[in-house]
Amino acid sequence: MTEAVYRVVEIVGTSEESISRAIDHAIERASKTLRHLGWFEVVQVRGAIDNGKVRQYQATLKVGFTLE
Amino acid sequence: MTEAVYRVVEIVGTSEESISRAIDHAIERASKTLRHLGWFEVVQVRGAIDNGKVRQYQATLKVGFTLE
Amino acid sequence: MTEAVYRVVEIVGTSEESISRAIDHAIERASKTLRHLGWFEVVQVRGAIDNGKVRQYQATLKVGFTLE
Amino acid sequence: MTEAVYRVVEIVGTSEESISRAIDHAIERASKTLRHLGWFEVVQVRGAIDNGKVRQYQATLKVGFTLE
Amino acid sequence: MTEAVYRVVEIVGTSEESISRAIDHAIERASKTLRHLGWFEVVQVRGAIDNGKVRQYQATLKVGFTLE
Amino acid sequence: MTEAVYRVVEIVGTSEESISRAIDHAIERASKTLRHLGWFEVVQVRGAIDNGKVRQYQATLKVGFTLE
Amino acid sequence: MTEAVYRVVEIVGTSEESISRAIDHAIERASKTLRHLGWFEVVQVRGAIDNGKVRQYQATLKVGFTLE
Amino acid sequence: MTEAVYRVVEIVGTSEESISRAIDHAIERASKTLRHLGWFEVVQVRGAIDNGKVRQYQATLKVGFTLE
Amino acid sequence: MTEAVYRVVEIVGTSEESISRAIDHAIERASKTLRHLGWFEVVQVRGAIDNGKVRQYQATLKVGFTLE
Amino acid sequence: MTEAVYRVVEIVGTSEESISRAIDHAIERASKTLRHLGWFEVVQVRGAIDNGKVRQYQATLKVGFTLE
Amino acid sequence: MTEAVYRVVEIVGTSEESISRAIDHAIERASKTLRHLGWFEVVQVRGAIDNGKVRQYQATLKVGFTLE
Amino acid sequence: MTEAVYRVVEIVGTSEESISRAIDHAIERASKTLRHLGWFEVVQVRGAIDNGKVRQYQATLKVGFTLE
Repeated sequence: MTEAVYRVVEIVGTSEESISRAIDHAIERASKTLRHLGWFEVVQVRGAIDNGKVRQYQATLKVGFTLE
Repeated sequence: MTEAVYRVVEIVGTSEESISRAIDHAIERASKTLRHLGWFEVVQVRGAIDNGKVRQYQATLKVGFTLE
Repeated sequence: MTEAVYRVVEIVGTSEESISRAIDHAIERASKTLRHLGWFEVVQVRGAIDNGKVRQYQATLKVGFTLE
Repeated sequence: MTEAVYRVVEIVGTSEESISRAIDHAIERASKTLRHLGWFEVVQVRGAIDNGKVRQYQATLKVGFTLE
Repeated sequence: MTEAVYRVVEIVGTSEESISRAIDHAIERASKTLRHLGWFEVVQVRGAIDNGKVRQYQATLKVGFTLE
Repeated sequence: MTEAVYRVVEIVGTSEESISRAIDHAIERASKTLRHLGWFEVVQVRGAIDNGKVRQYQATLKVGFTLE
Repeated sequence: MTEAVYRVVEIVGTSEESISRAIDHAIERASKTLRHLGWFEVVQVRGAIDNGKVRQYQATLKVGFTLE
Repeated sequence: MTEAVYRVVEIVGTSEESISRAIDHAIERASKTLRHLGWFEVVQVRGAIDNGKVRQYQATLKVGFTLE
Repeated sequence: MTEAVYRVVEIVGTSEESISRAIDHAIERASKTLRHLGWFEVVQVRGAIDNGKVRQYQATLKVGFTLE
Repeated sequence: MTEAVYRVVEIVGTSEESISRAIDHAIERASKTLRHLGWFEVVQVRGAIDNGKVRQYQATLKVGFTLE
Repeated sequence: MTEAVYRVVEIVGTSEESISRAIDHAIERASKTLRHLGWFEVVQVRGAIDNGKVRQYQATLKVGFTLE
Repeated sequence: MTEAVYRVVEIVGTSEESISRAIDHAIERASKTLRHLGWFEVVQVRGAIDNGKVRQYQATLKVGFTLE
């Protein structure tokens, strides 16, 4: 049927390199256990600082996927 | 014990007919895999438009249920 | 005088049928004790679930009325 | 090209009947002057009250459409 | 690898005694089924009233844990 | 009839001792003039400071009760 | 006793002249029926337009007062 | 027909004198190109500082008008 | 005159490559039809997922420009 | 270098006269100890009431200045 | 002069015991370097979890003090 | 002692190149005068536009550091 139902989960990806990599990590990891991922929304960007440099980027995402 | 703990999940129901049907779809689908659903809150209402008409209503719900 | 002052109160209407009926119930009940109701705003829509079906819709409204 | 750009406008539809009709009115009116309407989001539901009854529903929508 | 991915879930703990106990209940219950719980954030505190006394405290938490 | 209507009022309780006591004060005071109090939500916690110590806790609550 | 409890009500003042006058009208009107008004917070400023000029300013306030 | 549809646009008015003048400027300018302006809401007040004095007030408004 | 008035519009740029490219696309497209673009604010970052990879980044911007 | 860094501080100005004077007081006081103040944003307007009249306006501002 | 100006700073207190102790720690520490602390507002409550137990409470406060 | 207290400050970094560089600039500048920087959160991303191109990215951060 075309009247799909979706589930939305919240995931935090991290990366030492960039915000983009943090987003990618979150989605790659989510796709290992969840099928039919369809969209994401960035809800927060944070990070850890060490010695005056960004040590880690943390991107919190809402990720939506189809419930079969 | 009476001091229950609940879990809240986010679900998006869709319907070609109405917002109410979109809400119903979300709850019906959730109740297939989650027991003891107790309450919901509508957090967003969106929709898709086609040829100047609403083609699909999308209701995002938070749904709470008892953890046994 | 034309420079009216309004009061805003928060009311929750409920209905086993629909969100619309829940809104109507709230306004009908408010109009029994408050005169000169002028406008409302829906601030939250929640509901109770029983056996995988919506058992009750709950619409929280802000309702404004003229202070004489 | 596939990398589309969209514009989002804010519109308020009204109806004496229902919230759904207020949404429909907003989208029908928007589609007269804007082409390629693709989606909407309900950002507020208000209304006018007269003699203890809802006289008018007002649905504020964000409506998105493709820029050619 | 050090570039961890986390999942965030929403849980409501309850207690007849205090907000603190409601938070503790939520985390204790979550730790039964989820490993590697790392942090929480209190997103809402509500409660039930009976005969003019607080009968139950309800603490809604976001709880984060490492995905292995 | 089972389709109840509720009213929500905003109250600020204070206490020199603790946040919990401030919540209790608000609900005790409200229950003197309002019957059928059913639930509360904590919407803000503030306080006054004197000589580097908390002198007073202030808990702002929304309190709901049944309209007969 | 020094551990006071306060009530907060929402009022909309209007003025054809200025936002300040709209605030004043709201507080003057509230003080006719409520004693011990202590503070206010401006939560919204709106207005009506006629012929390209502001015809009326509308200031929505939360007003707090001591419950005796 | 009485079931009007409105459009809402966002405008920033500025003034070296006062917030009120900044609001007036925004509405005067909007009324040159938009007919049937009906209401506004102030969504942000900012300003520029020069030499420790306010050099410019900036009032961001949402302005609503009837679509014919 | 120095007391300028600005208009703010909402635009969604997309890109298969990066969030930055999505922002650039939105601004490049807006500058084709709007003159005197002055500033932007990122209000939301979303995206589409396909086969466990980000297929498209979507950046929603508010863009401000001078009204002549 | 042209790639400046700014600091934002939060300040509350008060006045017995008007909101404008409260804003001015906050900025005048801030400029005594902070150089290069560049902009402000009004984040809250509150006040104290005495005998049914506004006794004091309180304007909370975020104020930005260049870090040298 | 009675038209005081206040500064608001954001501080995070921590405690292994309770939220209250985390608040107290923040205020005690702030009072070592800032004089005339007058009020606080709790803006966030978070915590760290270890082995299914709360290991640390973290209370983020806005703290206001008089500028002389 | 392990029960640390942190301070959170708000900083705006700018860059002609990218959002990432704007974040880096803010943190590098903050680390010149503040020791023990521990984390950041991106609270706003804005920018300036010139001739239809992004001329400057502006990233507003909350930055937390340990108070000794």
